[in-house]
Amino acid sequence: MAAQTILFDFTLDKDKTGDEKQRQDVAKILRNELEHIFPQLELAYCMESPENGYFAVLHENKDTVITVRIFQHGLLTLNVEYFLPEGKEPVLSFEGAMRLEKVLALKLKAVKGQKLPALKRGDVARYFPSSDERIIEYDIDKVVYEARSPFQKIQIMHSKTLGNMLLLDELQNIAESDLIYTETLMCRGAENYEGKEICILGGGDGALLYELLKENPKHVVMLEIDELVMQACNKYLSVICGDVLEKRKTDQYEIIVGDCVDYLKKFIAEGRKFDYVFGDLTDIPITDTPEGETWDFIRTIFEHSFQVLKPDGKYLTHGNGSTCTVGLRLFEEQLELLRPKVKFTTTKAFVPSFMEEWLFYQVTFA
Amino acid sequence: MAAQTILFDFTLDKDKTGDEKQRQDVAKILRNELEHIFPQLELAYCMESPENGYFAVLHENKDTVITVRIFQHGLLTLNVEYFLPEGKEPVLSFEGAMRLEKVLALKLKAVKGQKLPALKRGDVARYFPSSDERIIEYDIDKVVYEARSPFQKIQIMHSKTLGNMLLLDELQNIAESDLIYTETLMCRGAENYEGKEICILGGGDGALLYELLKENPKHVVMLEIDELVMQACNKYLSVICGDVLEKRKTDQYEIIVGDCVDYLKKFIAEGRKFDYVFGDLTDIPITDTPEGETWDFIRTIFEHSFQVLKPDGKYLTHGNGSTCTVGLRLFEEQLELLRPKVKFTTTKAFVPSFMEEWLFYQVTFA
Repeated sequence: MAAQTILFDFTLDKDKTGDEKQRQDVAKILRNELEHIFPQLELAYCMESPENGYFAVLHENKDTVITVRIFQHGLLTLNVEYFLPEGKEPVLSFEGAMRLEKVLALKLKAVKGQKLPALKRGDVARYFPSSDERIIEYDIDKVVYEARSPFQKIQIMHSKTLGNMLLLDELQNIAESDLIYTETLMCRGAENYEGKEICILGGGDGALLYELLKENPKHVVMLEIDELVMQACNKYLSVICGDVLEKRKTDQYEIIVGDCVDYLKKFIAEGRKFDYVFGDLTDIPITDTPEGETWDFIRTIFEHSFQVLKPDGKYLTHGNGSTCTVGLRLFEEQLELLRPKVKFTTTKAFVPSFMEEWLFYQVTFA
Repeated sequence: MAAQTILFDFTLDKDKTGDEKQRQDVAKILRNELEHIFPQLELAYCMESPENGYFAVLHENKDTVITVRIFQHGLLTLNVEYFLPEGKEPVLSFEGAMRLEKVLALKLKAVKGQKLPALKRGDVARYFPSSDERIIEYDIDKVVYEARSPFQKIQIMHSKTLGNMLLLDELQNIAESDLIYTETLMCRGAENYEGKEICILGGGDGALLYELLKENPKHVVMLEIDELVMQACNKYLSVICGDVLEKRKTDQYEIIVGDCVDYLKKFIAEGRKFDYVFGDLTDIPITDTPEGETWDFIRTIFEHSFQVLKPDGKYLTHGNGSTCTVGLRLFEEQLELLRPKVKFTTTKAFVPSFMEEWLFYQVTFA
């Protein structure tokens, strides 16, 4: 079950859309052209206002519905929407829509025009945002798993090119394609984990733990709050996490299900120290000010983490999309507030399932 | 100048949308919820049909226009559109739209819901399709160059993360970020170009020629039809093409502006042979049948190319997105028809500016 929405927009000379009469003329040209493709097109409704221009609803048998807006500044938007039964050909094919855009741009004498690829609606969720709020369409063909834990909505979707993908609260987390994510987070090749003591905060997908264990650390303790995430990843993401979430504990590692802040406090009280602490928790929020629950949480994590780090230890964590300069800057400002003082370096990688470049931080005592 | 269109869709229990009365009830719930966010909302128009369900136009001062469709199969689509003046805050923020989706899903008792990231319209063109017709939004902030040559529309756009991008007839071609494209096409590391004679068909962006020259070939001849593409790339894509398009000819290479088929015929007549021929021309069309101008062109190129190849020579070319299995299969079938017989291998790489994995072919005499 799906509807298709195809959006076109054209920029016209604003001297041709400034008054009602002009907009009516443009609308007439548009309607004439559309009738070549939709012969039974009817005008169902239109409205006008000096401030907001022209708006109209056209339809063919109430099936394909087309809305048109002509703003007085010269912008014309055209939305075509229809229901597409399974296995049927679309009313407007990809090439058909391309041709329509070209013809309309010509007839409307548009300065520029664009046609957006058809949007599929009501089908499996496939549109997710990049960190800078751009639309990304994934080639998702199946919802593999869906559940709500006490902490979050957990989904595992299958993408034809990226494999199984974990989504938490409808945000992309990690996919089978994303070894580069884990390798950049852990600075594989640049850091030597052999014989080291490591603490992972979060990391419920198991990928970081799985990769770290290949480097012969002395011991890794992983603190993950969400049992259900681990069960789901163990079952559907074993390509990236192996059997570490299945076993839960060996001589080399232990996964503790619980609130990492509670355990960090316990470690501080015991005087337990690590060579590496990994922050593999919530992403940095995209906000203009470092306020709210998430920022408080980030600060709490920082403060406790550095208390369990050896003097030459490192705190490694993911940042955000490299285009999110404001959020990243706020994150760095929080680091600068820490006492004792810390300093940091960054690494970055294009993460396939994020469809963008991601920034990672390596923090040490200054 | 831009309008924003924000699309939501909800899948409802189809037993609740099967008749007109039920759809009216759903529309009422929806309208009540929308009024919390748009207090001056008015119902401007609505229509009903047993086959195509409910459609309505709501608006606030004719500024924000909302259209609603409720299909009898249970799908509800909601389109919110308004003009967003430069520097103004959107009517619905990213987080606001997320919250609205959650509230509506709850109140409508939806099986599932999704909110698409806001689409920007009338601004710089930023939406382009992947090879399998998914929408990709680029972080394009500027049109650097735009012209129409006798052969195609040439655009160079600037993307914040990918650098300058070449688009031909509104399709992504290559960007500053795409060294991996050229390296995978030429099988860098696997092929030895030292002292070899090479012919490039097309390649107007200059990137392939630039990279090949680093490998000390004996001589490269490049046959490109579009003078204007080379001028644009020389000026705006020098990161990937160096000065090869500026110089045009040295002891090591020559760029000939002309139809490559004419020159291939000339080479055949002269008995001139190459170690490598590169097909860096039009992409493989995405069609169900190997017919039409482009397929004829592909076959012509094949036939002539293999006549100028030495017996142990190689024909290297790009294929298409690795999800386009039908188009790729047709391409391979054309290869299989060639006499003398040929065999092929493939390589692939995720090309940053294509936002997808691309397939490349290496063809030799069988």
